[in-house]
Amino acid sequence: MERVDCLIHNGTVLTMDAAGTRVDGGGVAVKDGRIVDLGSDARLRSFPAEETLDARGGIIMPGLVNAHTHLPMSLFRGLADDLPLEQWLNEHIFPAEAAHIRPDSVALGARLSIAEMLLGGTTTCCDGYFLANWVAEAVEEAGLRAVLGQGVIDFPAPGVSDPKENIQAAKAFVEQWQARSPRIRPSIFCHAPYTCSAETLKAAKQAADEQGVLFQIHAAETQSETRICRETHGCSPVQYLDRLGLLNRRTLLVHAVWVDKTDIGIIARRAARVAHCPESNMKLASGIAPIPDMLAAGVTVALGTDGCASNNDLDLWGEMDAAAKLHKVQRLDSTVMDAGTVLRMATIDGARAIGLDREIGSLEIGKQADLIVVDTNQPHLAPLYHPRSHLVYAAHAADVCHVLIAGRPVVRDRQLQTMDRDALIREVRRMGGIIAGAQDGKK
Amino acid sequence: MERVDCLIHNGTVLTMDAAGTRVDGGGVAVKDGRIVDLGSDARLRSFPAEETLDARGGIIMPGLVNAHTHLPMSLFRGLADDLPLEQWLNEHIFPAEAAHIRPDSVALGARLSIAEMLLGGTTTCCDGYFLANWVAEAVEEAGLRAVLGQGVIDFPAPGVSDPKENIQAAKAFVEQWQARSPRIRPSIFCHAPYTCSAETLKAAKQAADEQGVLFQIHAAETQSETRICRETHGCSPVQYLDRLGLLNRRTLLVHAVWVDKTDIGIIARRAARVAHCPESNMKLASGIAPIPDMLAAGVTVALGTDGCASNNDLDLWGEMDAAAKLHKVQRLDSTVMDAGTVLRMATIDGARAIGLDREIGSLEIGKQADLIVVDTNQPHLAPLYHPRSHLVYAAHAADVCHVLIAGRPVVRDRQLQTMDRDALIREVRRMGGIIAGAQDGKK
Repeated sequence: MERVDCLIHNGTVLTMDAAGTRVDGGGVAVKDGRIVDLGSDARLRSFPAEETLDARGGIIMPGLVNAHTHLPMSLFRGLADDLPLEQWLNEHIFPAEAAHIRPDSVALGARLSIAEMLLGGTTTCCDGYFLANWVAEAVEEAGLRAVLGQGVIDFPAPGVSDPKENIQAAKAFVEQWQARSPRIRPSIFCHAPYTCSAETLKAAKQAADEQGVLFQIHAAETQSETRICRETHGCSPVQYLDRLGLLNRRTLLVHAVWVDKTDIGIIARRAARVAHCPESNMKLASGIAPIPDMLAAGVTVALGTDGCASNNDLDLWGEMDAAAKLHKVQRLDSTVMDAGTVLRMATIDGARAIGLDREIGSLEIGKQADLIVVDTNQPHLAPLYHPRSHLVYAAHAADVCHVLIAGRPVVRDRQLQTMDRDALIREVRRMGGIIAGAQDGKK
Repeated sequence: MERVDCLIHNGTVLTMDAAGTRVDGGGVAVKDGRIVDLGSDARLRSFPAEETLDARGGIIMPGLVNAHTHLPMSLFRGLADDLPLEQWLNEHIFPAEAAHIRPDSVALGARLSIAEMLLGGTTTCCDGYFLANWVAEAVEEAGLRAVLGQGVIDFPAPGVSDPKENIQAAKAFVEQWQARSPRIRPSIFCHAPYTCSAETLKAAKQAADEQGVLFQIHAAETQSETRICRETHGCSPVQYLDRLGLLNRRTLLVHAVWVDKTDIGIIARRAARVAHCPESNMKLASGIAPIPDMLAAGVTVALGTDGCASNNDLDLWGEMDAAAKLHKVQRLDSTVMDAGTVLRMATIDGARAIGLDREIGSLEIGKQADLIVVDTNQPHLAPLYHPRSHLVYAAHAADVCHVLIAGRPVVRDRQLQTMDRDALIREVRRMGGIIAGAQDGKK
């Protein structure tokens, strides 16, 4: 048989394919960055392999897809919590961004976030931030896969001091990264309907559609946003965006908390995608998105952590757990958002939401080899009756032991292979000291 | 200076004492199971010590208190999820208990739960189950601290085939363990107001009060329980228990989800304690307990995970995170349940709720040396602005590196010192195979 680059064996393979295929006592063969075979160990054993990774009876599954991040904001993790949203933003986050967001800090924050994601089994993220070029360089270097959006907002922003140039800056970013890396897809990220004019929104979406890239936007996150939208535009944020012609299958609506039946009907009809960020919505007291209703209407819903300033981590395991439980208690119905549904949101549906489902999101022959191994040899994962249940309700980021992206081992035995973890933490702490000092200085 | 048994140094000491004392660059000195000093490393360095544990700049804090567990039920972790409560209980959990709960399986499940708790920094739990004697033996052997309740229910139960003997069995357990181990306090655990008669409830509480031990009871967990109580007794579960004279400071009400203002007033006046189990209440779709109102009324509220069959872990880190976020989103108020409040619920208030606050729950000279070290040298815990924020919103069980109970290191460098982890997991998997086989056989 043909020689392969890597053989991952001795695990339970949870493919997350459409048929829900699962192989006990099996593995995956990887060559040239792609999955060339998967199945029982008895068969795969005959592949000669450059490298063999033993899953030790654990779970082999697709890498997780984090559909909403602001990578550089990990520098502000835990800077301010438990405050009213306006105070948190205006007194802490916006001033910290104004004072500290530069190309080098964007790159540093992105590297910190990437390290956390890789160690926790997230192999793809969909990001939106300013100075996206520096985020992209960090992603490229560390071996992550990502859709990266250059931020558009009608205010002076890091790297775009004149808002009149925001569309041009986004276009330039997209052109620069459109074909530069097989793991990076550029995107345009409009901050929100209330921070961008109708003209900006339309121009940004037009630019995204012309380039065939994803258009991302925060929408209907808070009750007050929705109220103000109704006062200003006479309709809900979703209806406003639809009226501007912004909704299609390459549109990712982030949060979508305050949406009603009409809104959900529009989202479904336009085949727009939704990124659900339950922990951010909980911590910032934004509200509970009606996800079960969206799923019932056929909307593709992904899971996102949001930025570290509001969550305070990039841990999709916690996000899955919260997504499964939050809607149960809200509806007093323990059958909604079952483990399988939530796991799809964090894998194949996440990939679909950001336009990558033909390449990633499930383990299938021919797809990119973005996969992780979950170590189940631990008291909190024993006994094991149903892998999906453990993954959603009991597993944590620290249980991920091996991570491959495009066939490249980026984490082996819980150790980062593409980044110097200790040097990174030292550098982040130095920067954290500067940020904390500036905060104290203001008091 | 006097020789000490153990010196934990080079950390940020979060004492959780009444003044909120925190020492940066400090540690704790331990002798004969108790804290004999704490403060800056500069001063503590002069203690000669049998053993020195380096916190490597991490957080040194009290061990966590899990105020509601059913330790043996870890054998049923993930056996059935996402089902209506009645179906989950009647078709899965009760039959599994009837078929598999024996002294040896109770001991095995308890050991599995203890291993998970120790590795995750939980140093004390408050348990309720049947065959409590075998739980106690496992706790004693592994070095955990616990309040252990023998279950009382008016049905045939494991170890008490004739319900007429349930009070006697509970009394016998309390007498047996009342003075046997310095780390174990016996208790009486009535299952619920709707599974015990008024006579049983009164006799159980009387027995508990006579022995000066904690009385635990599930109360007002579900809407249907509360409705049926109103139909049967003409009042809420809390009012019913109060009418029977069951509420005082040695009563722990578990769940207390469906309580109104009158109920909260009664709980506060009687100084009864509450164990809040947010993740279990979410997953089983029981409802959201009005914890901020209870705190405002002066009620002592602890945090509990509930049994592994309903959560599906014994991870207080996830429970803290859920407790902090759930009430924010329910009330659309991001200022409720701040990190400090939640951290107290999992430490000193947890200790107070189960009657152990003079011995544990905070790091103070003279108290038991139940303490943990959280390793902050990790991407998801960098940078670090506010330790309490990280502990509630970003830290996980796997971040705990050292654990001491009564001065004894039970976990060093993330390794269990008092249990054979691998042998335990093997044994649990064997038992899991039997349980799964019996389930399949029924189909």
